[in-house]
Amino acid sequence: MVVRRHDIRDMGATIASGSHPVAGMIVAPCSMRSLAAIANGLDDNLLTRAAGVQLKERRPLVLLAHEAPLTLAHLRNMTAETEMGAVILPPVPAFYLRPNSVDDIVTQIAARAINLLRLGPPVAAAWDGKS
Amino acid sequence: MVVRRHDIRDMGATIASGSHPVAGMIVAPCSMRSLAAIANGLDDNLLTRAAGVQLKERRPLVLLAHEAPLTLAHLRNMTAETEMGAVILPPVPAFYLRPNSVDDIVTQIAARAINLLRLGPPVAAAWDGKS
Amino acid sequence: MVVRRHDIRDMGATIASGSHPVAGMIVAPCSMRSLAAIANGLDDNLLTRAAGVQLKERRPLVLLAHEAPLTLAHLRNMTAETEMGAVILPPVPAFYLRPNSVDDIVTQIAARAINLLRLGPPVAAAWDGKS
Amino acid sequence: MVVRRHDIRDMGATIASGSHPVAGMIVAPCSMRSLAAIANGLDDNLLTRAAGVQLKERRPLVLLAHEAPLTLAHLRNMTAETEMGAVILPPVPAFYLRPNSVDDIVTQIAARAINLLRLGPPVAAAWDGKS
Amino acid sequence: MVVRRHDIRDMGATIASGSHPVAGMIVAPCSMRSLAAIANGLDDNLLTRAAGVQLKERRPLVLLAHEAPLTLAHLRNMTAETEMGAVILPPVPAFYLRPNSVDDIVTQIAARAINLLRLGPPVAAAWDGKS
Amino acid sequence: MVVRRHDIRDMGATIASGSHPVAGMIVAPCSMRSLAAIANGLDDNLLTRAAGVQLKERRPLVLLAHEAPLTLAHLRNMTAETEMGAVILPPVPAFYLRPNSVDDIVTQIAARAINLLRLGPPVAAAWDGKS
Amino acid sequence: MVVRRHDIRDMGATIASGSHPVAGMIVAPCSMRSLAAIANGLDDNLLTRAAGVQLKERRPLVLLAHEAPLTLAHLRNMTAETEMGAVILPPVPAFYLRPNSVDDIVTQIAARAINLLRLGPPVAAAWDGKS
Amino acid sequence: MVVRRHDIRDMGATIASGSHPVAGMIVAPCSMRSLAAIANGLDDNLLTRAAGVQLKERRPLVLLAHEAPLTLAHLRNMTAETEMGAVILPPVPAFYLRPNSVDDIVTQIAARAINLLRLGPPVAAAWDGKS
Amino acid sequence: MVVRRHDIRDMGATIASGSHPVAGMIVAPCSMRSLAAIANGLDDNLLTRAAGVQLKERRPLVLLAHEAPLTLAHLRNMTAETEMGAVILPPVPAFYLRPNSVDDIVTQIAARAINLLRLGPPVAAAWDGKS
Amino acid sequence: MVVRRHDIRDMGATIASGSHPVAGMIVAPCSMRSLAAIANGLDDNLLTRAAGVQLKERRPLVLLAHEAPLTLAHLRNMTAETEMGAVILPPVPAFYLRPNSVDDIVTQIAARAINLLRLGPPVAAAWDGKS
Amino acid sequence: MVVRRHDIRDMGATIASGSHPVAGMIVAPCSMRSLAAIANGLDDNLLTRAAGVQLKERRPLVLLAHEAPLTLAHLRNMTAETEMGAVILPPVPAFYLRPNSVDDIVTQIAARAINLLRLGPPVAAAWDGKS
Amino acid sequence: MVVRRHDIRDMGATIASGSHPVAGMIVAPCSMRSLAAIANGLDDNLLTRAAGVQLKERRPLVLLAHEAPLTLAHLRNMTAETEMGAVILPPVPAFYLRPNSVDDIVTQIAARAINLLRLGPPVAAAWDGKS
Repeated sequence: MVVRRHDIRDMGATIASGSHPVAGMIVAPCSMRSLAAIANGLDDNLLTRAAGVQLKERRPLVLLAHEAPLTLAHLRNMTAETEMGAVILPPVPAFYLRPNSVDDIVTQIAARAINLLRLGPPVAAAWDGKS
Repeated sequence: MVVRRHDIRDMGATIASGSHPVAGMIVAPCSMRSLAAIANGLDDNLLTRAAGVQLKERRPLVLLAHEAPLTLAHLRNMTAETEMGAVILPPVPAFYLRPNSVDDIVTQIAARAINLLRLGPPVAAAWDGKS
Repeated sequence: MVVRRHDIRDMGATIASGSHPVAGMIVAPCSMRSLAAIANGLDDNLLTRAAGVQLKERRPLVLLAHEAPLTLAHLRNMTAETEMGAVILPPVPAFYLRPNSVDDIVTQIAARAINLLRLGPPVAAAWDGKS
Repeated sequence: MVVRRHDIRDMGATIASGSHPVAGMIVAPCSMRSLAAIANGLDDNLLTRAAGVQLKERRPLVLLAHEAPLTLAHLRNMTAETEMGAVILPPVPAFYLRPNSVDDIVTQIAARAINLLRLGPPVAAAWDGKS
Repeated sequence: MVVRRHDIRDMGATIASGSHPVAGMIVAPCSMRSLAAIANGLDDNLLTRAAGVQLKERRPLVLLAHEAPLTLAHLRNMTAETEMGAVILPPVPAFYLRPNSVDDIVTQIAARAINLLRLGPPVAAAWDGKS
Repeated sequence: MVVRRHDIRDMGATIASGSHPVAGMIVAPCSMRSLAAIANGLDDNLLTRAAGVQLKERRPLVLLAHEAPLTLAHLRNMTAETEMGAVILPPVPAFYLRPNSVDDIVTQIAARAINLLRLGPPVAAAWDGKS
Repeated sequence: MVVRRHDIRDMGATIASGSHPVAGMIVAPCSMRSLAAIANGLDDNLLTRAAGVQLKERRPLVLLAHEAPLTLAHLRNMTAETEMGAVILPPVPAFYLRPNSVDDIVTQIAARAINLLRLGPPVAAAWDGKS
Repeated sequence: MVVRRHDIRDMGATIASGSHPVAGMIVAPCSMRSLAAIANGLDDNLLTRAAGVQLKERRPLVLLAHEAPLTLAHLRNMTAETEMGAVILPPVPAFYLRPNSVDDIVTQIAARAINLLRLGPPVAAAWDGKS
Repeated sequence: MVVRRHDIRDMGATIASGSHPVAGMIVAPCSMRSLAAIANGLDDNLLTRAAGVQLKERRPLVLLAHEAPLTLAHLRNMTAETEMGAVILPPVPAFYLRPNSVDDIVTQIAARAINLLRLGPPVAAAWDGKS
Repeated sequence: MVVRRHDIRDMGATIASGSHPVAGMIVAPCSMRSLAAIANGLDDNLLTRAAGVQLKERRPLVLLAHEAPLTLAHLRNMTAETEMGAVILPPVPAFYLRPNSVDDIVTQIAARAINLLRLGPPVAAAWDGKS
Repeated sequence: MVVRRHDIRDMGATIASGSHPVAGMIVAPCSMRSLAAIANGLDDNLLTRAAGVQLKERRPLVLLAHEAPLTLAHLRNMTAETEMGAVILPPVPAFYLRPNSVDDIVTQIAARAINLLRLGPPVAAAWDGKS
Repeated sequence: MVVRRHDIRDMGATIASGSHPVAGMIVAPCSMRSLAAIANGLDDNLLTRAAGVQLKERRPLVLLAHEAPLTLAHLRNMTAETEMGAVILPPVPAFYLRPNSVDDIVTQIAARAINLLRLGPPVAAAWDGKS
């Protein structure tokens, strides 16, 4: 995978257009500010514009919404995004997999997000139904 | 008609106040960003503030919403604006008028927008029911 | 691609049944009449019946809704269709690609619609982020 | 006023286009069939298409909805039309004006409808607050 | 049928209690004031209280809502009442029965209302499908 | 029971008027086209008009909605009809009664529909709680 | 302008009928009691009846809703009235105009209300964009 | 506790203003008339005005809604009041506490209402989990 | 009336099927658990399944919902059940009938519930409008 | 295809976790009890938990909802599930394919369900547009 | 009370975190821009972020929403905020307290806002019920 | 703090009654099954019944909803619970506090939950605005 870094104010970047092909997008972490902008179609920087493009092109969009506790505004934004096809993935640790470190937790959450892009076979550890 | 150009960050411009009389407003093109801000009452620059003023003073507001395809967020914003009295005018070519050039298309769309301000007799070409 | 032409009143055509496999459907142009019939599940001719079949079989359906300005009825129909999985694609010219002729505009819109069927690699011109 | 009579199937008549200027439209009587078609944007004949044009051009549209009793479907259609700017005018006799004949009733209802087009000074008899 | 006349302020009348058996109720004419009070459960006089009792005991309630044109408030009240089981019967003349006098119109409307109480065989003139 | 056959375009048939007394109506099978027309009050042929009459006169209406799978449009139409008092009866076989033939299935479904008209004692086979 | 004073219980006053022509109506101050009655169509005195008439005749209605803080009931009533075409004008002082006295404040609010009736050129002081 | 008795028509009583400090309010019994007025913000007498003041000042308001059976109007009013922070307390006997007399029932209900004002430690009998 | 007692886990009992004729059903007392299950169609034991059968066969269902205070969840469940045709009857004492004992209260509530099944003439004491 | 049978109470089975890869799930027949649990996210046994996992992992879920007639609760549950991406497939016989036996009907329904999992080419008989 | 002044762009200020204890927050004046951002959870500067923190920690938040007239967007934002627990306090003068100067008005409004934080005994002048 | 352990099937435990005073309740972790039961008022075991009691007594209820990704059913349940006064607290690690171990994460989440009960001064680490 090629790494490309864009300035968040660069609205002219290729990922800001629906005609540019990408496989999907993960927003991690997804601040409540970005969550609100995406839910309302407020494309006010490159991140929220690119997320909006995924929704309009019906491509995978995974949002690691990172906030607690939640208000009605947060829940309504998450609901609107889910209705548009995005996947809300709060980065909650999979305690049933018995993580040993903060790293284990981060890796597991990242793997879950990547699986939801459906680029290939799952990379997250599967639960063996024992725990 | 006198031309006046305002900086989009100039929130102190006269058109930012409801007490300043104007006949109406056309936003062309109306980006999805502006569309979202107007629909939610988020007066975050001179353009969206001035559009909000038209809505609050019940004056004509015509939005040439320029995006395709549309998401639920876009459609909900357009619905909210229509409920507030604005007119959503996607700049789709009037193919039934058999335009010969890109110019014909642009002129026709502009005329449609101006007619909707109801400043005087229609300027757009009428369909003669033949096509 | 094999071309087959059906009479719009021929409700017995194969495309009127969900058991007949097709890859998806584009309605171009999609009149407000067809838009309303599809949104409400009113399968009253072969076109709207076939569109309804795509929705019930969860196959791609792209609607080039061609009208301006829009009313609440139009927006509610578009919203209902989007909720059912259809893609609303108003045929607005991609002015940022600087079309030179009406033909350029038509070709670009058609390519956008075909891309949304996801039959293969994109055929529409991509924005190079310059414009 | 010039009288022009159109065949209801003549979708190419000038009044079927928003670019043709008219002052407004009265549908009298407005059957529940027409009421439903207009509420849903189902432009399936010249009458419902022309009514839809008034709504999209934000011109006066008065519907003499003639049915009793009413169902939820009728009430929802009337609600949708009112939200779009139309005026629902059930042709109920103005008994407080003490009509002497069926003709009095018809004339009074017609005058009420015409007044709502706002073409000039009111033509309906005013209540003198005595009855 | 025994005639009994109650003062509208007499909240202690027997018809103000659900335990008093009646076959149903017709409100004719039903002013917009009464319509609103019944829709909102605002039992503020004997008429609206008695109407509320019919709704709570699930007995027939027929409302000759007499107003034109209608606003959203009127339509929302009618909708709420219909959802509660009442029947909205605007007193529109049955012109297809070719009434000869105001009396014919009043008689026909009254008969329609009485039929909807379902006390016995229909008393309103039936349409012979000719008109 | 007397059999009478009406042309579906004969809008002047007696069953098209609320003043003509019938005990109720079964639509079997009920196509998605008819389902949509009835749900929206679009009385566009004798069948949907007569169904609308049952709803407005608050008489039994049973719809054997025959379609699979269902879309949101179908479900919303079924919901609207149920809210208006109709009964949605998908013709699903009563496998728990162990039918031996297609005829058994058809007979059982027909009996269920007739029972819901409440014309007399039930005619459908009762489950003995054993299956 | 001729001053006429009506008793609030005089439901027979001319302004209680839609057939009596007036240019519009301002309710100042508009108590929460009147606000609720107007929003629900509860025409229970001359003031709320006359306000309802403006809504049904689609004439300007300006409500100086005077209450703080607001509850959901207040906000829902204001929303319903706005949806029906009324203008909610809370009498908040225009501090950006730097009023010197209570009188300045009252005069400015009154002028704003009158402007919204659109009887002629604006009478309220305009903001010169300096403040 | 000091007892003060107000005439229900005395809209000038101190409890009619939000600036007058009280700990909360119990309406017992709460008629459906009062329930409707409070839910809609219709401050039409001292009782409903004072209840509205509790809601606007976010103070405890307990409504002993006393009616059976309930209609949609009653339930919608209760729902609106609950959304505004009021507590709906139907005076149903706590049969699991095995009351011996009507007095026991009344006392228990009163204690429940007082507890919900949260003025101090609970006064209602607690269930010992045995019954 | 024959008494039959069923185990709540006996899902094969005859009353679990719509084809078994019964006149209606009273749930007394109706716990919040049963209320929730019935409102959501969660037929998880014989009681809630039998209640669901009454709703689907459009037969009388009376629920003596016994809880105080109420939450939004309770009110939403009651609303859903009322929309489906059930009658919510909170067992509140009819204090206006001046009960002398707990027994009087229980008897009165039971009689109210039985009346709502409409099996015959009312058995509950009627209010003589005096109290 | 390997057959594996799980006890419905075995919440520790591998299919109860989103990290276990499966292609989708068919619930046949789907009782109203399961339908309600899945619609509300009430993962109370292995079947409803596994169905919930398909929804949260955005995998195919096909529900052969088997009930007639339907209530609002059933329709609302089906609507919620459709909004979450599940497919409601009432097992109605495809009479237009002229089945000869109960077996034909069962086979056809099963094939329809399997097709909707989109594991490979369709297995259901296609309509030849003749019937 | 200690005064601390923060730059509105300083998102790292302590008040931007829920773990930092404050008693509540007053936004005075609250522009329509801030109102919209708070209602939608769009934490785009320190002010709106800090307001969002109050909502998520369920602490008092008082918004002196300063605009007139109001649009649907404004009213929807105010409604959403009220549903989340905020208090909308339009700075309308308490004319019934007979203010003598602009200062009196400002002081009274400020006192009302502070009272709603519930930090101690009320500081606003109480109405003596005389006015 | 005294520890008391209850069997989840013990519906007779004191915490199952509103008359038993407790300060509030934390559900940790809160499975999607419990989340759904609480949202719908389905008091089907001691945990969900006790949670329902907190809601009905308007006491603090904190739900550590532990699931990812979320579906519409999950979000709707969370929304309903928030509307009833509960606090949804997804156990997401506070990465900005730079936890060193799984224990740090668990401790921080627990402290957040306890703070939200408002039993005393905050126990969670505060962000110093540096991170």
